[in-house]
Amino acid sequence: MGRAMGLVGLLLGLVLVPAVLVSTSLRHGAPRTEAGPGPAPADWELAADAVSEDSLWPLPQWLRTSPRQLQLAPGRFQLVHGAGSSARPGCGLLQDAFRRYYEYMFGHSRRRRWGRRPLAARAEPELSELQVVIEAPDPGCDSFPHLGSSEAYHLTVTEPVAILKAYEVWGALRGLETFSQLVHEDDYGSFLVNESEINDFPRFAHRGILLDTSRHYLPLKSILTNLDAMAFNKFNVFHWHIVDDQSFPYQSIYFPELSDKGAYSCNLIYTPADVRLVIEYARLRGIRVIPEFDTPGHTQSWGKGQKDLLTPCYDGGQPTGSFGPVNPILNTTYDFMTKFFKEISSVFPDAYIHLGGDEVDFSCWKSNPEVKEFMKKQGFGSDYAKLESYYIQNILDIVSSYNKGQIIWQEVFDHKAQLKPDTVVQVWMANSYAHELSSVTGAGFPAVLAAPWYLDYISYGQDWKKYYRVEPLDFPGSEEQKKLLIGGEACLWGEFVDATNLTPRLWPRASAVGERLWSSRNVTDLQDAYRRLRNHRCRMLRRGIAAEPVFVGYCAHEGRRP
Amino acid sequence: MGRAMGLVGLLLGLVLVPAVLVSTSLRHGAPRTEAGPGPAPADWELAADAVSEDSLWPLPQWLRTSPRQLQLAPGRFQLVHGAGSSARPGCGLLQDAFRRYYEYMFGHSRRRRWGRRPLAARAEPELSELQVVIEAPDPGCDSFPHLGSSEAYHLTVTEPVAILKAYEVWGALRGLETFSQLVHEDDYGSFLVNESEINDFPRFAHRGILLDTSRHYLPLKSILTNLDAMAFNKFNVFHWHIVDDQSFPYQSIYFPELSDKGAYSCNLIYTPADVRLVIEYARLRGIRVIPEFDTPGHTQSWGKGQKDLLTPCYDGGQPTGSFGPVNPILNTTYDFMTKFFKEISSVFPDAYIHLGGDEVDFSCWKSNPEVKEFMKKQGFGSDYAKLESYYIQNILDIVSSYNKGQIIWQEVFDHKAQLKPDTVVQVWMANSYAHELSSVTGAGFPAVLAAPWYLDYISYGQDWKKYYRVEPLDFPGSEEQKKLLIGGEACLWGEFVDATNLTPRLWPRASAVGERLWSSRNVTDLQDAYRRLRNHRCRMLRRGIAAEPVFVGYCAHEGRRP
Repeated sequence: MGRAMGLVGLLLGLVLVPAVLVSTSLRHGAPRTEAGPGPAPADWELAADAVSEDSLWPLPQWLRTSPRQLQLAPGRFQLVHGAGSSARPGCGLLQDAFRRYYEYMFGHSRRRRWGRRPLAARAEPELSELQVVIEAPDPGCDSFPHLGSSEAYHLTVTEPVAILKAYEVWGALRGLETFSQLVHEDDYGSFLVNESEINDFPRFAHRGILLDTSRHYLPLKSILTNLDAMAFNKFNVFHWHIVDDQSFPYQSIYFPELSDKGAYSCNLIYTPADVRLVIEYARLRGIRVIPEFDTPGHTQSWGKGQKDLLTPCYDGGQPTGSFGPVNPILNTTYDFMTKFFKEISSVFPDAYIHLGGDEVDFSCWKSNPEVKEFMKKQGFGSDYAKLESYYIQNILDIVSSYNKGQIIWQEVFDHKAQLKPDTVVQVWMANSYAHELSSVTGAGFPAVLAAPWYLDYISYGQDWKKYYRVEPLDFPGSEEQKKLLIGGEACLWGEFVDATNLTPRLWPRASAVGERLWSSRNVTDLQDAYRRLRNHRCRMLRRGIAAEPVFVGYCAHEGRRP
Repeated sequence: MGRAMGLVGLLLGLVLVPAVLVSTSLRHGAPRTEAGPGPAPADWELAADAVSEDSLWPLPQWLRTSPRQLQLAPGRFQLVHGAGSSARPGCGLLQDAFRRYYEYMFGHSRRRRWGRRPLAARAEPELSELQVVIEAPDPGCDSFPHLGSSEAYHLTVTEPVAILKAYEVWGALRGLETFSQLVHEDDYGSFLVNESEINDFPRFAHRGILLDTSRHYLPLKSILTNLDAMAFNKFNVFHWHIVDDQSFPYQSIYFPELSDKGAYSCNLIYTPADVRLVIEYARLRGIRVIPEFDTPGHTQSWGKGQKDLLTPCYDGGQPTGSFGPVNPILNTTYDFMTKFFKEISSVFPDAYIHLGGDEVDFSCWKSNPEVKEFMKKQGFGSDYAKLESYYIQNILDIVSSYNKGQIIWQEVFDHKAQLKPDTVVQVWMANSYAHELSSVTGAGFPAVLAAPWYLDYISYGQDWKKYYRVEPLDFPGSEEQKKLLIGGEACLWGEFVDATNLTPRLWPRASAVGERLWSSRNVTDLQDAYRRLRNHRCRMLRRGIAAEPVFVGYCAHEGRRP
């Protein structure tokens, strides 16, 4: 990310000042009503989403807003390509984004207010358009976002036009989100924006949400809705934990039996068309889709549709009929994996595949006489972590041969598998994750932090604060090591989550992680975050995301006549 | 409840045998597939709602099912008034219930399957109708359910007709729910029911759900949806915590300023028409609506629309501009309350009103010189609990004068207010609630238990088991005292709950409380409950309640082609 920011900073010729300092000095205090003698002064008497300056989420790296307001006329206001932009009206990605953000800004109240009152009745000058300028020679309209993509942007809102500059379309998407957050509707139904200047870029390049479609199947619509919410929070990685022990909903082209037998039902699957749709929907929002096919553990559902893939377990010299992890001693296993990952590498365009490797239970391997024989032959002694590493290295080699990068859970590193230099290690064990980050980056591997952000663990109250307080770089290590932490992920494992509760359980709790991964390190004021998060949650609700409330109160739009 | 049961048992001439013994011996074991060597044998490989005998919730007091199956033809099957019933086709309550339960049983797949295959293709004999017989001279079609209503019923399902007998319509509603739970759809789309006999009645007469519409406004639709869910779980009391500090959404006829000024917004209110609708919707499902108007604390929102109602707080001899609890020393307070509760008594038909009385903060009263003077005059010394009791007793007298019974939170009892003999004390403090139940019933007051069932406190995993394990009668006391525990309530306070997350947060967790309050004391098998609860949750989902999953897996209907 350092690179991307430097580049755009240079291109835009800006001096970057931490947002938190500038914005605080300019932000109006929110109006307060009297509070009772009971608990602390209560924010609940305010409708959330009432104060526009307090509604940016995640907070940009640098911003300056002026009290001077401009008015937008929904019937006239336009999102357009600016002069000098390398993007043309043929850029589907931007055209789609223009339409989308126009709707977010004005759509909800179009029927209600348009034309009711002439714009001239107000004193404010008008903002007539937002010009979007892509500066790179190739804007990237048809490309996929990747780890090195630039998401930086520079936004100026002044009369009569606002200008959004970005090196690539990915930065423009982030800037459009920010611009839409600046526009607010006053009590009279006028759309206003304060004159502002924003320079922004992400702190971390990898900002992910993990959804688990194996413990419960998630309908396509739930996934798409959450991609919308991710874009509202500037997340850029959808980590799709697509299969696991419980079910195999991924419909394979080469091995259709995997989902025929391994899915919960023949209808609870993701067809190739579904997968393409998810990938394209995500791409249009600047989101990478990284699929996880976790082996050799967590594979019970694979075994149903692929004979001899799993290890037969033994008891007292006899097979029990049960199966353990993937059988690592058979050539047929690797033949299967070679073909399977060839398909996965071609279906998923991202440069990375997540290969899992967590929580391998050795007991079945230990019980199997052929596996024991193999261990002896290989000289592994009784160290089954070596067998695990042997398997994983074979898989890593297979996937590398398709020119894909790899992400693995931390055990693979812990068990000393020989990893390719750029393999990303995802740290998930809550116990001493700082130490683990230190080890992983100390060994020169890029790391992604998930441990403190397991959002399936719920508790009473405002637990978003717990997620918000995490400082990812608080681990022992050199500057070089810190640079190897490429980001983090909020994980919503699916044991207790399906379409009924996914969205309110994930949002706005994941928003706390979103700001931690995007905004400057010194954006840590909980009171300020609380105010902005409430507004942000109301905005998500207005945009169709059933994000749960942060605390007591209501959203201004809920109080308006429908 | 003892009375109602004895009456119906007598009328029906039945010997009552605990359900858990009979049903277990007859229930088929669920089929199992092989499980991995990892954690315990996994129920997740089964689709929930696949096995009909395992789908009753709450478990009836006595049931016998036979393996013999009868088939229902949706195009012919009828719910009708049986011979000898005092109810006639003009009984709107039953007609509405017939229509509703017909839809629950067949509606979801009507378009899909009807007429596709002639019924004759199957070997099973047909069940042609369910005859409902109300035995009381007055069936109660136009009445309201009350604490003494009979909810007992007797159901026989044999070829060619099923017969549901109940003394009152309330029992018929419960029996219709049970009958609808027996009917299941097989893989071929046939509707089947096992020949069965069920005798059932509630263990406790008061089985409530508390919803809080002050911390967050709940749209009417959310409330109605949850009344549906309550009926599916045989709950019979909607405890409507309608106003509190944060907002006053109840639109009063006499005092419209209360919601004009005290609601979050002029649109976030319950109009008289809304309230009537909720009451009627609940009545049609055999659910009482008990409104709570909590005073003298928790009243900040009241003060906005009613001048001089709250106590002005002082600091250093000067009013601070803040206000405390209701001012208990002014005649105008009691004039207001007299008129206000006259309205409430007439708007809400239930024989009880909940008057709150919890968590009164004395600090403002202590600061106010006029209150101090009043204390002296009354000889209360510095015991502000006496002032609280003085106020509450006045309110109790007012409400009594309208012939309404009263429910209060436990502090009112703890602070030794002089209560009318039939005042119901609701026990909510989690700390030693058994001891409190003992004291309350020892003093001769009926009690309602809420303490172990605060469902707003969430935690990871299957916390329904915690609610399920509670045995309400596990408190020290005589048989007479035990009889005074009239029931319990699952409470979903609204600090972190609104329409976005209410339903999945409440259901099926509250179902655990529902069974505890309805079924026999010895229905405590967690494994059996788990299996039934999963099926019940799937049924709720099918009926439009977004109940969250109990654990990993899926519902059979989710796997069917839409």
